[in-house]
Amino acid sequence: MGALSNRRVVLARIPQGAPQPADFAFVDEPVANAGAGEVLLRTVWLSMDPYQRNWMAGASNYGSAARSGATVIGRAVSEVVSSNDRRFAPGDLVCGETGWQTHAVAPADALELVDPTLAPVSTALGVLGSPGLTAWVGMADIGKPRSGETVVVSAAAGAVGSVAGQIARILGARVVGVAGDPRKCRHVVEDLRFDACVSHHDSDVGGSLARDCLGGVDLYFDNTGGPVTDAVFGLLARDARVVLCGLVAEYGAAAACGHDLRPLLATQATLKAFSVRRNLHRMQEWRRQGAEWIREGALVYREDVVRGIERAPEAFIRMLAGRNTGKALVQVAEEPSRH
Amino acid sequence: MGALSNRRVVLARIPQGAPQPADFAFVDEPVANAGAGEVLLRTVWLSMDPYQRNWMAGASNYGSAARSGATVIGRAVSEVVSSNDRRFAPGDLVCGETGWQTHAVAPADALELVDPTLAPVSTALGVLGSPGLTAWVGMADIGKPRSGETVVVSAAAGAVGSVAGQIARILGARVVGVAGDPRKCRHVVEDLRFDACVSHHDSDVGGSLARDCLGGVDLYFDNTGGPVTDAVFGLLARDARVVLCGLVAEYGAAAACGHDLRPLLATQATLKAFSVRRNLHRMQEWRRQGAEWIREGALVYREDVVRGIERAPEAFIRMLAGRNTGKALVQVAEEPSRH
Repeated sequence: MGALSNRRVVLARIPQGAPQPADFAFVDEPVANAGAGEVLLRTVWLSMDPYQRNWMAGASNYGSAARSGATVIGRAVSEVVSSNDRRFAPGDLVCGETGWQTHAVAPADALELVDPTLAPVSTALGVLGSPGLTAWVGMADIGKPRSGETVVVSAAAGAVGSVAGQIARILGARVVGVAGDPRKCRHVVEDLRFDACVSHHDSDVGGSLARDCLGGVDLYFDNTGGPVTDAVFGLLARDARVVLCGLVAEYGAAAACGHDLRPLLATQATLKAFSVRRNLHRMQEWRRQGAEWIREGALVYREDVVRGIERAPEAFIRMLAGRNTGKALVQVAEEPSRH
Repeated sequence: MGALSNRRVVLARIPQGAPQPADFAFVDEPVANAGAGEVLLRTVWLSMDPYQRNWMAGASNYGSAARSGATVIGRAVSEVVSSNDRRFAPGDLVCGETGWQTHAVAPADALELVDPTLAPVSTALGVLGSPGLTAWVGMADIGKPRSGETVVVSAAAGAVGSVAGQIARILGARVVGVAGDPRKCRHVVEDLRFDACVSHHDSDVGGSLARDCLGGVDLYFDNTGGPVTDAVFGLLARDARVVLCGLVAEYGAAAACGHDLRPLLATQATLKAFSVRRNLHRMQEWRRQGAEWIREGALVYREDVVRGIERAPEAFIRMLAGRNTGKALVQVAEEPSRH
């Protein structure tokens, strides 16, 4: 067998504002050897996530700093090619932060086995992975919707929002989504079974939301920030809770997108920001719960797939622009056939 | 005895931006008769508070709406002139929301007796009244400073901030104030014994605060909003708490003063807004605790007094502009002599 070649996607430069294709470049090089305790991987599914934009903007809490020439960070589901750790064998599927590349050498300690009998393995990056866990922790543990409450979820068609809103619905709340366009709004209402969905392209988002939230908003699960957040702040009910999960509309923005805090004061609201990174120990628990809801039909998911690592920048740019519906994935290679 | 004359201060118009003397007018009229269950009062001490500006801006949660001709709302310590309720007798001192006027007829149910043996009766409007209770609930119950934590308090020389910061110090935290000018900052450090105080007129508030909060800000007790809040948000430590008590720098502002929420997300912060109005049942408990701390010398207070109801608009304008040091009061009449 000849030496494997690895293709990786690097930052050609730090993006300013919305990322452009020219912000990315490709590097081909021989695959490195796996050392002791390491595993050689072939990437199958690559996850496109908003936090990658935050990393590119210089956020310091993602391990390595973004710089020109750095491999773009990201989670992937990969096949084990060879393993120097007895926990993993060739043919196994694993999930880890292995970056935008066709092959990776990773420490076994940083990988988790993916069970292909639980659900399609790509769900380890979406509904049964970090985005799903984010939605579950943020909605069920922090937001704690009560039966009959009105819950608003921004980026309702996205990987986190779609799960967060469905969990609120499962827990008995009335759920109103905010999504990007009428097609996504239909998906949110018809497929995800939110009670209503407002397009953030609506010229009067606040007015539309007000009609769907007549008693005010008891709980706001915010993935986006931006003007949607101000519109929802203006509709908060007394003692409202805001779960601040993401501010994707503001990542990479040079200037702050300023939010009026006066509605929070007037309603005696509580805002809690959180990160899934401190809740990763609950992943197995979420996988069991999420898979059960999927089997029961209570929880549905959609994936938005492009094929080939060459299209990762395009998929990422589309995801940031909100042109995906469902979890944005790049299929880098075929899944291994199962026996 | 001839009919008593009441002088009251009314809104000549709704203030736009910073209130002006011409926004106020005086009305003289005979004192109304006290009906069944009512008490006739002579105002002694009148309290100047930021929430009055919020009422003037149209906030709806203060009973009657602000309109041209309305008596300005406000708390006062008053002497009972005559009483149709057996709980109060002439000569008693009471506290209530009786507005900016020299005399008031009020329902007995809305009044509390002030004990003149506990402390000077004017403290029922300041350190042992709503501002003190606000500080105690917000700092001790919601903020919960722990020993060794770094706490920042804005409007540190004000009626609420001065008490909030001292409570944090009593509870073992390191306390850094933000106040209006070097004279106030000296008062905050020398008299109130905060560990440090930064002037918000400082050209680099954030830089000055950063030097005083090297490990980051664990708890921010915010009375002001405005640029100080953004400076502190940029210094929050991981898992920081923000207690949102007031936004006095923003009351009456036409446009929102926009705040960047990204630092809250990055630090996984919790922001809790609260109102003292839902904690008034704890007033007696706070009076006992506060009076004990005052007797021990742990808690000190200062009052900023002008005399005569005619000067209430001036005192209010000064307070909003931050030109007071300590609790802003108008002495409307002499206290009754005690036997």
